Amino acid sequence: MRIHNFSAGPSALPAEVLEQAQAELLDFPFNGKSTGMSVMEISHRGKVYMAVAAEVERDLRELLAVPANYKVLFLQGGGKGEFSLIPLNLLRGKTSADYVDTGHWSVGAVQEARKYCTPNVIASSKDRDYVYVPPQAAWQPNADAAYRHICSNETIHGVEYQWTPQVDDDVPLVSDMSSNILSRVFDLSKFGCIYAGAQKNIGPSGVTVLIVREDLLGKPHPFTPSVFDYTQQAANEWMLNTPPTFGVYLAGLTFKWLKARGGVAGVEKINIEKSRLLYDCIDGSGGFYRNGVDKADRSRMNVPFFIRDDALHAAFVAEADAAGLAGLKGHRAIGGIRASLYNAVSLAAVQALVDFMNDFARRRG
Amino acid sequence: MRIHNFSAGPSALPAEVLEQAQAELLDFPFNGKSTGMSVMEISHRGKVYMAVAAEVERDLRELLAVPANYKVLFLQGGGKGEFSLIPLNLLRGKTSADYVDTGHWSVGAVQEARKYCTPNVIASSKDRDYVYVPPQAAWQPNADAAYRHICSNETIHGVEYQWTPQVDDDVPLVSDMSSNILSRVFDLSKFGCIYAGAQKNIGPSGVTVLIVREDLLGKPHPFTPSVFDYTQQAANEWMLNTPPTFGVYLAGLTFKWLKARGGVAGVEKINIEKSRLLYDCIDGSGGFYRNGVDKADRSRMNVPFFIRDDALHAAFVAEADAAGLAGLKGHRAIGGIRASLYNAVSLAAVQALVDFMNDFARRRG
Repeated sequence: MRIHNFSAGPSALPAEVLEQAQAELLDFPFNGKSTGMSVMEISHRGKVYMAVAAEVERDLRELLAVPANYKVLFLQGGGKGEFSLIPLNLLRGKTSADYVDTGHWSVGAVQEARKYCTPNVIASSKDRDYVYVPPQAAWQPNADAAYRHICSNETIHGVEYQWTPQVDDDVPLVSDMSSNILSRVFDLSKFGCIYAGAQKNIGPSGVTVLIVREDLLGKPHPFTPSVFDYTQQAANEWMLNTPPTFGVYLAGLTFKWLKARGGVAGVEKINIEKSRLLYDCIDGSGGFYRNGVDKADRSRMNVPFFIRDDALHAAFVAEADAAGLAGLKGHRAIGGIRASLYNAVSLAAVQALVDFMNDFARRRG
Repeated sequence: MRIHNFSAGPSALPAEVLEQAQAELLDFPFNGKSTGMSVMEISHRGKVYMAVAAEVERDLRELLAVPANYKVLFLQGGGKGEFSLIPLNLLRGKTSADYVDTGHWSVGAVQEARKYCTPNVIASSKDRDYVYVPPQAAWQPNADAAYRHICSNETIHGVEYQWTPQVDDDVPLVSDMSSNILSRVFDLSKFGCIYAGAQKNIGPSGVTVLIVREDLLGKPHPFTPSVFDYTQQAANEWMLNTPPTFGVYLAGLTFKWLKARGGVAGVEKINIEKSRLLYDCIDGSGGFYRNGVDKADRSRMNVPFFIRDDALHAAFVAEADAAGLAGLKGHRAIGGIRASLYNAVSLAAVQALVDFMNDFARRRG
């Protein structure tokens, strides 16, 4: 029996996606005919997989309304890999980049960038333990920065941009969208580059989605490994090396699942409803549960919260687990509880969580 | 219906492995109990996946008899990624490395190494179009090289080391074993580092196995991305970032499958038989089929061959395909036919191929 999975990543995938993968795991159908092989046993350069790959890319382009002058790449290394690969690929001979610091993952990106350049932190919400997104009016941007980097959603602190920064100079905006890509409509044309590890809203871990405006290509640092060189991978339609073929195929099944649900706009409506349900439960608990993030900046994807009596956190996680609500332990960096509400987490799952929380509060409050 | 798959990679996986993955794809059992989640939906830092990962590593250590002073890492980026990551991690402040050139993949490793150091080609079989492995007596090694790199099996030219180079100085031996790891017994203690993309003898693409002697760690180039830094990954038990969890799990199923078949020594016997069967067919065809590799250096894993009448190659591939023998088209670099005989390709599959070849020769010879 499948349970409700609130893990922060790797995390829930749509049951329909897993069921289709299961049905065709030993014999992948192509054009309605049996191939007699698993999709993971097929050459990435053969016509069958080339068709799979083209369709996956086409569907993602459609879902995100990717403009024609952007390249879509399926790479490896995850979001953390991109902390290094973004400077290697996008510094383009410059020596500094701007970073906005909204929490754990922003800090990680800055630390890694130090290997390659001077990362200037142009705004930070560290002053209040990362419970808000610094408004753009408070940023102190540098016109000579190679790029301006944000993390659109912080999974640990539960903070999310509800707005897209305006770009009023030539510095391209780069966003780590690992944890909220495909969960809400946004205007990709405002960004020079976005990236996402797949293991939240896309598919299994081991796949990285990288979307980059073509004019930013062509000047990788000479030390950039070829397989992580956006320019070379773009020129080779991300087949310079063997891509993670099974993960990309699963991502493709997720894209079809999203399209059948009204695309990104369709799931965004459900995501709004899901997060409202949970935040209302927390805010309406008379202080039993607490989420300290500024309301305007609360994440729809990751909802960290604390119980008034710190000693109850372990009991909450254990009882929830026994009730079929998994993955609720908070990140070790801040403790407490965390519910991740990615696309594959249903409204019914969130309702079950809220019912459990109300019951737990009644019994332990 | 499953067909016989002779693809060079991604390539055949054992049906038993795929069947187990299929059975538990929506509900991974742990300690005999349902988790209610796919193994790919489970946090890599939770106790379930940590146990999976530990067992996968343990089984590989057992299969390869990995000495205690070696680290085993499951990374991303494939063999081609390692062409860059080996110099970044193992130059250790030195400025040159030795490379033995036995074909396409050796050349790729040398080209990529040029970004980071002076790669000295100390022996090459290019003089005879890569139909042999240069004997060690002909190597011209450099004592100040950071490492000495070989490719233990060349998938395109079908050339394989049937011997392990002797190390008579302090220069550690590094081997790209992407296409023959786990297919034959070898003494890992002779090597400083070996690596392999998974998509031949291990599992799906997107997983890299990297085994490195501990004393070689600790001096990565400062530009090494953290997630590809062997030292950092070793210190974090390859969990510095989210590993490709599903691919690693599948690799683990393959390791169990190998153990049930007598381990590496067990499959090596079958691999010897498989390759002998095919080479005997080629050599006994009265010149209808031809493999030009020196007999002592012929690969057990990849058997490229040509038909006397070049015009028959397309018909051969098409007819074989129709007969349920897939993936036989030769690499575009040299043309002809190629049969890859990785561990998951059964003796029965090779027998079916040989039967087809004999019949084809009779009809078209």
